[in-house]
Amino acid sequence: MCKKAELHEHGSDPTVTIPLPTFADVLAAAERIQPFIHRTPVLTSQALNNMFGAQLYFKCENLQKIGAFKARGACNAVFMLDDETAQHGVVTHSSGNHGQALAYAARLRGIPCTIVMPNNAPAVKQDAVVEYGATVVLCEPTLSARLSTMQDIMHRTGAHPIPPYDDALVIAGQGTAALELIEDYPDLDIVMAPVGGGGLLSGTAIAANGRDPSITVIGAEPAIADDAKRSLETGIRQPPPSTLTVADGLRTSLGEITFSVLQYLNVHIVTASEDAIIEGVYRMMERLKIVVEPSASVTLGAIIEDPLLVAGKKVGIIVCGGNLDVRNYLRV
Amino acid sequence: MCKKAELHEHGSDPTVTIPLPTFADVLAAAERIQPFIHRTPVLTSQALNNMFGAQLYFKCENLQKIGAFKARGACNAVFMLDDETAQHGVVTHSSGNHGQALAYAARLRGIPCTIVMPNNAPAVKQDAVVEYGATVVLCEPTLSARLSTMQDIMHRTGAHPIPPYDDALVIAGQGTAALELIEDYPDLDIVMAPVGGGGLLSGTAIAANGRDPSITVIGAEPAIADDAKRSLETGIRQPPPSTLTVADGLRTSLGEITFSVLQYLNVHIVTASEDAIIEGVYRMMERLKIVVEPSASVTLGAIIEDPLLVAGKKVGIIVCGGNLDVRNYLRV
Repeated sequence: MCKKAELHEHGSDPTVTIPLPTFADVLAAAERIQPFIHRTPVLTSQALNNMFGAQLYFKCENLQKIGAFKARGACNAVFMLDDETAQHGVVTHSSGNHGQALAYAARLRGIPCTIVMPNNAPAVKQDAVVEYGATVVLCEPTLSARLSTMQDIMHRTGAHPIPPYDDALVIAGQGTAALELIEDYPDLDIVMAPVGGGGLLSGTAIAANGRDPSITVIGAEPAIADDAKRSLETGIRQPPPSTLTVADGLRTSLGEITFSVLQYLNVHIVTASEDAIIEGVYRMMERLKIVVEPSASVTLGAIIEDPLLVAGKKVGIIVCGGNLDVRNYLRV
Repeated sequence: MCKKAELHEHGSDPTVTIPLPTFADVLAAAERIQPFIHRTPVLTSQALNNMFGAQLYFKCENLQKIGAFKARGACNAVFMLDDETAQHGVVTHSSGNHGQALAYAARLRGIPCTIVMPNNAPAVKQDAVVEYGATVVLCEPTLSARLSTMQDIMHRTGAHPIPPYDDALVIAGQGTAALELIEDYPDLDIVMAPVGGGGLLSGTAIAANGRDPSITVIGAEPAIADDAKRSLETGIRQPPPSTLTVADGLRTSLGEITFSVLQYLNVHIVTASEDAIIEGVYRMMERLKIVVEPSASVTLGAIIEDPLLVAGKKVGIIVCGGNLDVRNYLRV
């Protein structure tokens, strides 16, 4: 964490200086989390390659612990804590994969973990966190209630907060997926990842740039939630969209750190329509035989709508997660 | 193929003597097909292990070429043909995975391939075979029409028939999946595989017995189509059931060779209800994040209904295929 960058706050805030995660941080994270995560397989499909005239390599983070890449960042952040800090536990607010990932990492370290969730979070999501041994604290379904509940827990227990994406250690952890992919396939032209809060994409960009600066890194987001694209085009962080994309993991907007990393490394963003995202889910299930959440098919969705993006290229694609509510969607 | 066994024909036929495939055949198959197939990953789930108090290792043949283990047997049979025989091509009758597998293997060898299908086979199944470059010949949807159409093609073109399961080379090829699994996890107590025609199960039994005779091999089939169980219990090959299980790949009954192998190696058969098979599909999709066809979840279905089968054990499970009609079942 030696590089520094000027950060452009949304609105009229003054600029701030925060250390950005570096390639060395990603390498250190890979070593730190190796005992706790899967080195996930990379799948290919001749049929998909033929469809797009490209060679596509899918890095299956849906087959990761807790079913998503988030296990990487959470483990890196939790295992970096000193014993004194760690013993008071960790806390975050999340009703999704980050909550499960933090619960998983905390159990491995043997420390308390509290996940703040809105009281309208589905029981299945609460149960998933409890299964990993964490405590769920419910609050009103507003951002201010979430934050004040978290503050309260921090003051009461001394728990350390682990943010879902805007954190150098979390970003470095997420970057280890791309690191493994590039180790397995060193001659990639492009690496693609979805972008919501930007933790995965910024980690991916740091890893790719560190390993081989000639690799082009492309982020993909829903066309109806293209705040990352607009943020990078305007140079001003855009607020989250009000529309609800089917890719529910990508409804957040960039954080200060992730925005800076993506700016700094000139990451390009493409978009996919809702129809293309859903078509992407089908094709990945049909051709790769894997279960993916819609947030994970936004990359393939963008390729479906613009095959020229990848034509003739070797393209690594980070499949971010597989936490689809199968019973609600599938009728066997 | 040096072992011989007396074969009990269904009904009053006299006994016949046919060479049974051996462990040496499986080892030779592994070397022969290695350039053409994936060494498929083995997945685990802590949640599934906790549910059943066992350690389950899922060998993902749904991630194999053509989405099923059948690519192994077809490649072994096709690449064993001498050039003179091969140049006339290969033929089979199948509306399922074996047809795709044979088309795949024939394309690799660069020889003609004809797949006989009933004229009511879904267009998507015909297209899948044509995609691999084979010729589809439609016939009336009866077994006699299938066989006479095949005979006709063989006489006309000199094509060599490759049966779906009752063939020593096909069986030896299917056994390579278990061989890889046991190489990766040498201390398994049990290996389970689904049983329809018995090609996968008999190959699995030969591989497991050859590598480590202390491994227990268990076959699983639908309770409403338990002809393999009854065949082995009575010592007389039972006809296919008239009921239509959801596990459509398991509607066939044992062949002469597969029946003999399973008898010879004392393979035990367990069953799963239709509900348990479907529950198995859900759990494998939810927990392993993979797409499986119902034929592939009959093993987990049997475990769901009788967890004592595996309690405290290390269990390898061959996941036979992932060719589920996703668009018909899933609504994202």
